[in-house]
Amino acid sequence: MTVTEPTINTSTEPEQAAREQALTEAVVASFATSTTDRYRELMTNLVRHLHGFAREVRLTHAEWETAIDFLTRTGQKCDDRRQEFILLADILGLSMLTVGINAPASHGATESTVFGPFFVDDAPEVPLGGDLALGAKGTPCWVSGQVRSTDGTPLAGARIDAWEADEDGLYDTQYVGNRTAGRGWQSSGAGGEYRFWSVQPVHYPVPVDGPVGELIAAAGRRSMRPAHLHFKVTAPGHHTLITHVFVAGDPYLHDDAVFGVKDSLVAEFTEHQGGTAPDGTTRDGRWNQVQFDLVLAQEK
Amino acid sequence: MTVTEPTINTSTEPEQAAREQALTEAVVASFATSTTDRYRELMTNLVRHLHGFAREVRLTHAEWETAIDFLTRTGQKCDDRRQEFILLADILGLSMLTVGINAPASHGATESTVFGPFFVDDAPEVPLGGDLALGAKGTPCWVSGQVRSTDGTPLAGARIDAWEADEDGLYDTQYVGNRTAGRGWQSSGAGGEYRFWSVQPVHYPVPVDGPVGELIAAAGRRSMRPAHLHFKVTAPGHHTLITHVFVAGDPYLHDDAVFGVKDSLVAEFTEHQGGTAPDGTTRDGRWNQVQFDLVLAQEK
Repeated sequence: MTVTEPTINTSTEPEQAAREQALTEAVVASFATSTTDRYRELMTNLVRHLHGFAREVRLTHAEWETAIDFLTRTGQKCDDRRQEFILLADILGLSMLTVGINAPASHGATESTVFGPFFVDDAPEVPLGGDLALGAKGTPCWVSGQVRSTDGTPLAGARIDAWEADEDGLYDTQYVGNRTAGRGWQSSGAGGEYRFWSVQPVHYPVPVDGPVGELIAAAGRRSMRPAHLHFKVTAPGHHTLITHVFVAGDPYLHDDAVFGVKDSLVAEFTEHQGGTAPDGTTRDGRWNQVQFDLVLAQEK
Repeated sequence: MTVTEPTINTSTEPEQAAREQALTEAVVASFATSTTDRYRELMTNLVRHLHGFAREVRLTHAEWETAIDFLTRTGQKCDDRRQEFILLADILGLSMLTVGINAPASHGATESTVFGPFFVDDAPEVPLGGDLALGAKGTPCWVSGQVRSTDGTPLAGARIDAWEADEDGLYDTQYVGNRTAGRGWQSSGAGGEYRFWSVQPVHYPVPVDGPVGELIAAAGRRSMRPAHLHFKVTAPGHHTLITHVFVAGDPYLHDDAVFGVKDSLVAEFTEHQGGTAPDGTTRDGRWNQVQFDLVLAQEK
């Protein structure tokens, strides 16, 4: 619809402010009957912040319409291979904030970072020493480390999910078709060890062909993420770890579009030319290597 | 995905608060390059409120996931006949707040209320005295009044769009198929007059078969809207008026699910049994009548 924009009521007259406050209080009161205390707490706090936002910026009707349209299209951009609302939460720093709020207090555990929109549930199992590139293009990269508890105990049988973009900066889910590449999971060995071949991570732009891309453009922001490999690690009696290992020296380490970098997650990826790889195989061309331990916090 | 919920970091330690504040400031700073001052103002204020919400309630990862899923499904529930995000904004009082913020300061104009999710752009034209029920079930209701400017000048040729639910509380768009009923538009006559037959409005529940219905249930709220007829009125040189006329005596006038009632919008719908209607026709059964003037604020 087209609405002639009225003169905004910028009045700070007490009666205007009182009318607006009364509405906020009525909406807050409507959640008094919530089925749980937590739901009431969440919704009343959300209402106060949303109303505070609209009141402070004197939200216009056209802006309200733009927001409705933006959110609608964001939902409609999602399918089982793309999650535009996670990307939105990432770009607004809300995902990283939630990570920080939920960080286990135990010291010594590997730090967490954003989950991102590219995880899929049905990745293939890759045995210790196997190749999870599965045809993804890029420089081969040997990734290894140990899964252990914060008390130093090696964690055998932990599940390590890993996923990453190929050398063109694209995840398998961003290609037409349903191929699986650059993702997989394995169980850690008796000493907590894990190891697999993959490809060298590269920096890449987040997807900008949807509503979130419009936001990035309107904000004049850059859309790059520094090179990284995703991990999700689960082991009985321990908190699930969701993190990345970032590539030391990446030019976007201090300009991550989703605010995900932590110093402790940056590791050296060493470069090799030919020779014998850690798994005993003879390599012809260039290959890289990173060692990154995954330390899980115990559940209380 | 399933994530073991870690112990929430409820720490109010200065370093935890400082880490969270630093993230908020980094996200705010990322909007410094916005293409317009207004965009920067909107987004930085939004980020501060969204982060404030997450920090104050100590948002869990599971709640973050629930929110992502809820918003995704809300977007996917929308189509060209249903707008679930408008319904969400209505239920959270954000629509009515925006109406209040944007109310023209001119005294004497008809007050505004929520637009709602049921307007469609291609309603049929109904001549003066015509019937916009178009087969919608209900007690016939004669609706008439005058469109005028706040200075008293009658507004000829104003466009009056009207739409409403039938006696079962359903809009045409809520039925299977693409029928049009209970909606239409007409141009006001030389003296600003408008008049049409429609059906008596009834109170009804907002649609609760989508994500917003889950919210209403979790909140323990009622989903009813008091009986009303929607108006959208446009005239050159005047602000567009979006409003309702509410039925006096409705039991939900003080319990509107979308907070839309204003006292000045409540009118008497008088009941008649047979006799001669205002358009000179002879009526057999029951019919109702309401008179409601539509006063538009002049553009500056």
